Amino acid sequence: MIKKVLIANRGEIAVRVIRTCKEMGLKTVSIYSEADRDCMHVKLADKSVCIGPAEASKSYLDIPRIMSAIEVSDADAVHPGYGFLAENPRFAEIVSASNKIFIGPPSHVLELIGDKIMSKEVAKKVGIPLVPGSDGCVDIKEAIDTANRIGYPVVIKASAGGGGRGIRVVRNEKELREKLPLAIEEAKVAFGDGRVYIEKYLINPKHIEVQVLADKYGHVISLGERECSIQRRNQKLIEEAPSISIDEVQRKQIEEAAVEFCKAIGYEGAGTVEFLMDQDGKFYFMEMNGRIQVEHPVTEMITGIDIVKWQIKIARGERLNIKSVERRGFAIEFRINAEDPNNFMPTPGKIEELYLPGGFGVRVDTHIYCGYAVPPYYDSLIAKLIVWGEDRKSVIRRAKRALEEFVISGQGLKTNIDFHRRVISTREFAEGKHHIKFIEEMMV
Amino acid sequence: MIKKVLIANRGEIAVRVIRTCKEMGLKTVSIYSEADRDCMHVKLADKSVCIGPAEASKSYLDIPRIMSAIEVSDADAVHPGYGFLAENPRFAEIVSASNKIFIGPPSHVLELIGDKIMSKEVAKKVGIPLVPGSDGCVDIKEAIDTANRIGYPVVIKASAGGGGRGIRVVRNEKELREKLPLAIEEAKVAFGDGRVYIEKYLINPKHIEVQVLADKYGHVISLGERECSIQRRNQKLIEEAPSISIDEVQRKQIEEAAVEFCKAIGYEGAGTVEFLMDQDGKFYFMEMNGRIQVEHPVTEMITGIDIVKWQIKIARGERLNIKSVERRGFAIEFRINAEDPNNFMPTPGKIEELYLPGGFGVRVDTHIYCGYAVPPYYDSLIAKLIVWGEDRKSVIRRAKRALEEFVISGQGLKTNIDFHRRVISTREFAEGKHHIKFIEEMMV
Repeated sequence: MIKKVLIANRGEIAVRVIRTCKEMGLKTVSIYSEADRDCMHVKLADKSVCIGPAEASKSYLDIPRIMSAIEVSDADAVHPGYGFLAENPRFAEIVSASNKIFIGPPSHVLELIGDKIMSKEVAKKVGIPLVPGSDGCVDIKEAIDTANRIGYPVVIKASAGGGGRGIRVVRNEKELREKLPLAIEEAKVAFGDGRVYIEKYLINPKHIEVQVLADKYGHVISLGERECSIQRRNQKLIEEAPSISIDEVQRKQIEEAAVEFCKAIGYEGAGTVEFLMDQDGKFYFMEMNGRIQVEHPVTEMITGIDIVKWQIKIARGERLNIKSVERRGFAIEFRINAEDPNNFMPTPGKIEELYLPGGFGVRVDTHIYCGYAVPPYYDSLIAKLIVWGEDRKSVIRRAKRALEEFVISGQGLKTNIDFHRRVISTREFAEGKHHIKFIEEMMV
Repeated sequence: MIKKVLIANRGEIAVRVIRTCKEMGLKTVSIYSEADRDCMHVKLADKSVCIGPAEASKSYLDIPRIMSAIEVSDADAVHPGYGFLAENPRFAEIVSASNKIFIGPPSHVLELIGDKIMSKEVAKKVGIPLVPGSDGCVDIKEAIDTANRIGYPVVIKASAGGGGRGIRVVRNEKELREKLPLAIEEAKVAFGDGRVYIEKYLINPKHIEVQVLADKYGHVISLGERECSIQRRNQKLIEEAPSISIDEVQRKQIEEAAVEFCKAIGYEGAGTVEFLMDQDGKFYFMEMNGRIQVEHPVTEMITGIDIVKWQIKIARGERLNIKSVERRGFAIEFRINAEDPNNFMPTPGKIEELYLPGGFGVRVDTHIYCGYAVPPYYDSLIAKLIVWGEDRKSVIRRAKRALEEFVISGQGLKTNIDFHRRVISTREFAEGKHHIKFIEEMMV
């Protein structure tokens, strides 16, 4: 049984998890670095443990320190949030070996989905289309052969990469010969794993992903898809559900593919299967993420289902008893970052004025408050604005007024609030013609 | 056509209306008293007009000043909010006579529903049960005859009263002889109308009301009921939808009764038909309110329908084209008042620390912000917390955590946030056994 949950994370996702724990009657323990003493996740938890200095490597990424916090606070379960150790198989393993419950998939599943090549092999086996590419990892000869077969441009990807990291586009053989050795070296340094593979480079694809829930007894359901095509430098910026880029037939196909993939790997918990969709409407499996995702609230807003609650229920051995998933309306999430919208550089600083938008159809998930100083050490995400509406036109209009209301100011502090307004005011976004390179095109 | 809306109100309801106007692409004009320069409704509107000093009689209740603001700002429609002039037939009449659109029912309808005795006659005519009582207004002899017929205790009510004002409970003939002349005198002073009537005093009834929408072409629909049984001194404090005190048969009956009443009086716009339900589950018509109500968000949360948007659509002549009203889950609203929870006395003051709750299922409607000074001149309502959940148990749990998160502090400032937590933590509330006298019993 779970009675006390330690949240091995910080900021808005720690606040998010604490909220659901409280609603379930569970005690909560926050961990924090010395830079995070005043963060809201520390204030909201029943108990908090300082685990080290500001640098994440010495606090939020330091497994022994976190294990000590678990022991000291007598927590019986750990929610890892996203980022940091959320998909680290070793962390999941150590937590389980200490007779604590890891709220997430088992270590061996994290290992499998963390390996992009192995994941693709599974996808292929269950009949999910893959972007044309090499059969597993490649050396320079295999890379050239593959590129000749599928045609340029191609992408070199690190097997251990993900979330947009470890990717290089190559337009011809000369570039491939130059960049492949560099990519291998970089992957070794960045991920401790030099394996790379080759894929066809898709022109202006859309990012579509499926939210799944899977219990310990082999039941897997889809909570529907999200479209996350508004990205900057491969980082999602605006996410929505449902996607207006697919029809009911495609929706059924992609949901079935995601469920089949999860069944094939024995997935447990909440997870996301990510796909790219090319300009002809064809889907290709990209990867699976074994954690709660930043953009999970858009799915919650249209289904009414609390995904974090189901993570915990599944972890404590409950069966998925969701009879049917009813969807209502449209939802869009905006990642509000403390950053300069012109160059995406972080702009930490103290919040002197704050007005959070509210009213019908508006949800805000955040750890900031008036007087809070955004530290320079972590992700620049300081709030998520999620807006619901009966149709996509309404939700865009509501989002515009909510973004207009949203005030975060302080010396040196900049945010991308106005940038979001510009993006959703474009004809391309209104018509659903945005794709993963849209921001780059718009910025020119 | 409507292009620019003047909101003849202040505070949270003015903010609420501005939000929907923005989402509909309409320009907005705020009015404000000298005490309200810094209120959020002034900051959010496209244009603002100061209409006079702090005292409501010289600003928010002063029709000529408001009419001037309408002329000056070139607004073509007026939304009256609730309270102040919202149900004043003369104001509605003057607005219409000036060729401006009054967003609310026509003057003659406001006149009819403002007269409690006339309303009851209509209800009786269309077959809606009334609390046993006098046939219209009474003198002392008719009052005694009526009381003898229906049995004590009885209530003396002012015909022009409403919202809990102008009510006296009488337990025997001696008290009736004493209090009737006083009640008549008081009604003359308070409402300029000395007519009173007698009704059976119901023991611990529940307050159930039906939200309706009616267009200009005779179409009337129900958006479902709300239960508002948690009241203090006849003022609602906590409201919820749907009511757990009625079954589907009763729900259908009460909704049909509300729709029939509206059809009988030629109602237009959004309105609420209020009923009392006795301990045997019998309904009695109480009154109709011809305005947007404070508690409208709970209906919005479960139906997904923006009621203010429909007020505007109806006012500009659109037809009600809502095919069916789908309800999802449960919602509860908490009126957050700047008041001492022990004696309900207002406690104005400057807000020095503010943390609004957020996350899944949480909506906040407010005009306050960090640094805002709550003025002493108006209603003590400073925020509405509305919480949604898949079932009533979940929504209560979520409400508890949201109330726990909610921080409003400042010198001299008190709120009823903790009081709300105490109320919803009672067994009576959890089991749905609360009634309109529950707070008084709880406070003893």
